[in-house]
Amino acid sequence: MRLSQLFTKTRKEVSTDETSKNAQLLIKSGFIYKEMAGVYAFLPLGLIVIEKIKAIVREEMDNLGASELSMTTIQSKDLWQKTDRWDDKNVDVWFKSELKNGSEIGFGWSHEEPITNMLRSYISSYRDLPVYVYQFQNKLRNELRAKSGIMRGREFLMKDMYSFSSDEDKHKSFYDNTITAYNKVFDRVGIGKDTFLTFASGGAFTQFSHEFQTLTDSGEDVIYLHRQKKIAVNKEVLTSEVLDQLGLKREELEELKAAEVGNIFSFGSIKTDQLGLSYVDVDGKTRPVILGSYGIGISRLMGVIVELFSDEKGIVWPENIAPAKVYLARIGENNEVITSADMFYKVLTDKNIEVIYDDRDIRAGEKFADADLIGIPYRVVISDKTLKSGLIEVKRRKEKESTNMSEKEFIKKLAT
Amino acid sequence: MRLSQLFTKTRKEVSTDETSKNAQLLIKSGFIYKEMAGVYAFLPLGLIVIEKIKAIVREEMDNLGASELSMTTIQSKDLWQKTDRWDDKNVDVWFKSELKNGSEIGFGWSHEEPITNMLRSYISSYRDLPVYVYQFQNKLRNELRAKSGIMRGREFLMKDMYSFSSDEDKHKSFYDNTITAYNKVFDRVGIGKDTFLTFASGGAFTQFSHEFQTLTDSGEDVIYLHRQKKIAVNKEVLTSEVLDQLGLKREELEELKAAEVGNIFSFGSIKTDQLGLSYVDVDGKTRPVILGSYGIGISRLMGVIVELFSDEKGIVWPENIAPAKVYLARIGENNEVITSADMFYKVLTDKNIEVIYDDRDIRAGEKFADADLIGIPYRVVISDKTLKSGLIEVKRRKEKESTNMSEKEFIKKLAT
Repeated sequence: MRLSQLFTKTRKEVSTDETSKNAQLLIKSGFIYKEMAGVYAFLPLGLIVIEKIKAIVREEMDNLGASELSMTTIQSKDLWQKTDRWDDKNVDVWFKSELKNGSEIGFGWSHEEPITNMLRSYISSYRDLPVYVYQFQNKLRNELRAKSGIMRGREFLMKDMYSFSSDEDKHKSFYDNTITAYNKVFDRVGIGKDTFLTFASGGAFTQFSHEFQTLTDSGEDVIYLHRQKKIAVNKEVLTSEVLDQLGLKREELEELKAAEVGNIFSFGSIKTDQLGLSYVDVDGKTRPVILGSYGIGISRLMGVIVELFSDEKGIVWPENIAPAKVYLARIGENNEVITSADMFYKVLTDKNIEVIYDDRDIRAGEKFADADLIGIPYRVVISDKTLKSGLIEVKRRKEKESTNMSEKEFIKKLAT
Repeated sequence: MRLSQLFTKTRKEVSTDETSKNAQLLIKSGFIYKEMAGVYAFLPLGLIVIEKIKAIVREEMDNLGASELSMTTIQSKDLWQKTDRWDDKNVDVWFKSELKNGSEIGFGWSHEEPITNMLRSYISSYRDLPVYVYQFQNKLRNELRAKSGIMRGREFLMKDMYSFSSDEDKHKSFYDNTITAYNKVFDRVGIGKDTFLTFASGGAFTQFSHEFQTLTDSGEDVIYLHRQKKIAVNKEVLTSEVLDQLGLKREELEELKAAEVGNIFSFGSIKTDQLGLSYVDVDGKTRPVILGSYGIGISRLMGVIVELFSDEKGIVWPENIAPAKVYLARIGENNEVITSADMFYKVLTDKNIEVIYDDRDIRAGEKFADADLIGIPYRVVISDKTLKSGLIEVKRRKEKESTNMSEKEFIKKLAT
């Protein structure tokens, strides 16, 4: 990507009403645009990051044997009345509107109900189970306060997966596999060591649900972490009874701020019963279907990553989800520099290495500032000076010093 | 993809309230699910087709030099009031709701306003122009009637592109390039020869806008087509004045039903003026920015394709957007057949050939019926009989007769 052709520009200031670090940095660097509080558009660089996170999540969900689909935003009132989640007293984040004929509709803030109802068309026998499905969907939630940038949106992208199993054991086994898959996701996007499985209250069906909480001062949650055991409990289940049960001692736990990046939940057969989804087993008996629900907030995840990986100069993207691997800055506008930089840009892109090529006619200092702000893992400089030495100048975003190496050495380094 | 692991099943009947052919076929074959009139979910096979269409459109838009982004569904009232498109008297398809603080919001049915407004942050000088941006977005439109399946949705997927140019000539040149790109898209998805550039009324700024209309009896529009010249006019501009201007004679035109699959529109500087987007030219003068808007209804396109390419047995997908290239049916459940079919499935998938592998233990007739209904370009049979001959049985969906050939020959045939 040539920066001269990208319409976004970095900026030094953002509006003072934007108080969250993630949104400030992402707006300054041109990844997102604020439409209103809690409502952000993804500009080209931001969309690339989102798609990279989605690709990782998609791979891990596919590995679980789940199928991707895409449910609708518009939701029918009837369906949610059956499970008592239509009334604003029970669910306080609905956006609602109405059709021309006056019938009320809602805008999807979650999808257990429509997916369960849809599967009534496809599940009737034990042979039809299990079913695992997931989607990436823009959820709409009428949040009272939305002050955490893309960490809490009124409109946000979520991966939501749903499992439908024939019994408790099979459900449990998929639930546990999902924990493993989620840990892989968080490892791959770079927050694995800061993210902890956290016991939360489970509702009517199971004692616990589980959250994946990432340590960050910007988080809206508080967790109680046992570092050695790598598990945590959240505030709502911090009781001596629960601690005993989990073999934890209160004095061994650290109280820490954290952001929920994923959560998984067993609904048992409550919802499937309410909506009339059951199956006939091998003996001809009608049995309940066990539902599990598994979320990862994709745009929130991006926000949390920015909170974790930044310094005073800007974002420091983990390599797997950076919008490009290399920021190629050409310094100087004479023919030799331009030709060499153009050529190296072509060499890299021909090797499918993603490059942001800063081909703008601006000062070196501005280019370096933008490279740091945008947060690309490797900065490469081609200038009169480097041309004379026959080497290029390479600096990692995470490091202070640059090193000189041949183009070949650099490409080899990227491959390792 | 193993059919034994796909939760969707084909069905013989659909609800009688579904009158459109495209939705009937897509529901029967398990591509879509009807949430309510005009609101359809995309099940795994349907999502694959949608993604294939998107990939083609994305490639052609990228070739035009446009950048992909993703604007928001939630829209602010203020913005649309500035252009007089908030009031239901002017725009009758708004879904509206409100935030907790009582302020009204709308749900995006189009995005000229927010994109123009966003670009005020990035365009100020002639050096910042042109800007071409596009997105794939779920549009929400409160349609009074929604009876054409996925051809007219209350919620539907659209590719919308916007161009911002410094003058009329540059705008015109991009506008013309887009016509070429759109023709490529329609060629590649298989409806090129049935799709015609159609003159439509242009509004305040230009005399004409342009639609891309595909001939189909299921279409909601009527066009007047000159077959030799490959252009058409729609009803609203069918006047003797326009015909003279375009060099057409009324008696040479055929009156035909058609569906609009794309449309392109010049807004001039009307909207950019209303929203305050201008630029300073090389002489320091403030100048208006010229806006163009270019849509392709992605889910509608899928519907139109199904209307065009089907027979009494089901859908006949054009190869470029079929959910798979090969439907591999194994007939017989003995070890030899299973092993051979499993192996050929692996051979094909290793070669990145997309296969729907019918590994279900059901009758041959059911498999053949499903292969036809789902509409995969090539059906391959492996059975006791084919194993004896050392050949596989290959039938194209479009043809009646099957032919026998070696696995090698088949793979070679696919590559041509």
